[in-house]
Amino acid sequence: MSDSLSFTGAEDSIRLLPAVNDDHGGVIVDLEEPMDSKVFIGALRASMSHWKHAGKKGVWIKLPIELANLVETVVKEGFWYHHAEPNYLMLVYWIPETINTLPANATHRVGVGAIVLTEKREMLVVQEKSGRLRGTGVWKIPTGIVDEREDICAAAIREVKEETGVDAEFVEVVAFRQTHKAFFDKSDLFFLCFLRPLSFKIQKQELEIEAAQWMSIPEFTAQPFAQKSSLFKHIADLCLVKLDKNYAGFCSVSSSSSSSSEDKPPYIYMNTRDLHRSGHTTTNRL
Amino acid sequence: MSDSLSFTGAEDSIRLLPAVNDDHGGVIVDLEEPMDSKVFIGALRASMSHWKHAGKKGVWIKLPIELANLVETVVKEGFWYHHAEPNYLMLVYWIPETINTLPANATHRVGVGAIVLTEKREMLVVQEKSGRLRGTGVWKIPTGIVDEREDICAAAIREVKEETGVDAEFVEVVAFRQTHKAFFDKSDLFFLCFLRPLSFKIQKQELEIEAAQWMSIPEFTAQPFAQKSSLFKHIADLCLVKLDKNYAGFCSVSSSSSSSSEDKPPYIYMNTRDLHRSGHTTTNRL
Repeated sequence: MSDSLSFTGAEDSIRLLPAVNDDHGGVIVDLEEPMDSKVFIGALRASMSHWKHAGKKGVWIKLPIELANLVETVVKEGFWYHHAEPNYLMLVYWIPETINTLPANATHRVGVGAIVLTEKREMLVVQEKSGRLRGTGVWKIPTGIVDEREDICAAAIREVKEETGVDAEFVEVVAFRQTHKAFFDKSDLFFLCFLRPLSFKIQKQELEIEAAQWMSIPEFTAQPFAQKSSLFKHIADLCLVKLDKNYAGFCSVSSSSSSSSEDKPPYIYMNTRDLHRSGHTTTNRL
Repeated sequence: MSDSLSFTGAEDSIRLLPAVNDDHGGVIVDLEEPMDSKVFIGALRASMSHWKHAGKKGVWIKLPIELANLVETVVKEGFWYHHAEPNYLMLVYWIPETINTLPANATHRVGVGAIVLTEKREMLVVQEKSGRLRGTGVWKIPTGIVDEREDICAAAIREVKEETGVDAEFVEVVAFRQTHKAFFDKSDLFFLCFLRPLSFKIQKQELEIEAAQWMSIPEFTAQPFAQKSSLFKHIADLCLVKLDKNYAGFCSVSSSSSSSSEDKPPYIYMNTRDLHRSGHTTTNRL
């Protein structure tokens, strides 16, 4: 809903900033056009007065990086930073006198590691051209960062395909690790996923991958680095229990969403083997 | 390592910006003092030239919100935004001609929901004063946002204590859900945790909680809202299988870290019941 009005003040006709209502009683200003900072400050003050009278709560101002000249002005009006992406800065202000219920900023980066195991008990491993294992000769599982709006199960499949050319299907999350201060004050969630290969021919990615191959688990475990790293030990353990079919991780279950703004229902990851074996489930089996 | 040098140029003695080296061949400038933008731009250009000659890669400039007057200047020198918190903006520049390997920004907010079950088969439920269930009379499990640098298992215990006054111990993560576009372009990871109560007297928090009590699972399930919500159905299913001891979730295992900068080892969450039963584990049992 656009809220782009004009009203006549004592001296001039001052335009209000273009704004849309959000779902929580607030407004979002998404400035796209360059604006002189003097014109902008008049419009911002008139708009704030208008929103206060209208009982609005949070006021969001999204400034593209091209409008960096307006950041100081917005801050001087009492706004603070909420989050930033490479090409924009989001500022926010809370009008009511009550405690602000603005959503927290994102705190975690999410990564995936893919354990891809064949029926011949071989796992897919790579050597990387960058990162802290570069040049060490260490064979590791394919890993990568989950993109914005990407499902964990989809990210694992994508990373395997990108790094090695191997097609695979997602089976389950077998473990995850939470690390703090991964970069600045942010944290990291790393999901170890188990995948079933659908093709076996390796075509490695040139940019990031030094080498890729199928390797036996004893060979993986025998690497000096793997003997020191608790993560590598966990990976080796998980390979063995998965091959013996003795380990239930969390499968992805498509869940109907209670939020109408979703494009598709979100995934819930859970131990469906135990759940279905118990006979207690009221939800659908995948 | 401080890098605060002066050098004599053709006309003036120009001070370089104070910087420390990061672990990836870059430098971090953490500006704390107010600075005139003309003095700043001279120092920034001299510093950039110095860092280029020194073969530095990423250049990070952390500007406190009080120095919002310098944002435009930094952007005009080619920097872009990396992330922002309420009180600062982090800008970044990549000097080499190679592809930038700067860490991605945080993409996910992390929440927890706590299933606290007694041996009498009662669960801890609350009615909230805010949020989308406000005023609906719906009884739900305690939930909350995981703080920056907080472990998921600790967050679940904290939320239960804050909202209801009940002491509890973390048992395991029983499921998690990934939702996209939870706010702006960010995603949400919500961890359902199972906790064992250590105390039973309820003392509800006044600010956020309308009511709190122990409730039987059939009563929870019979709520009209619970019959429509797949998440509530999953919670009810998980309560039943947990009470029958038929469900293995992911326990937290303290893992020795390969990173020396960690204060304490990160937690790995995994199905330790299946892992130990198999006899394959090379890692310590908790």
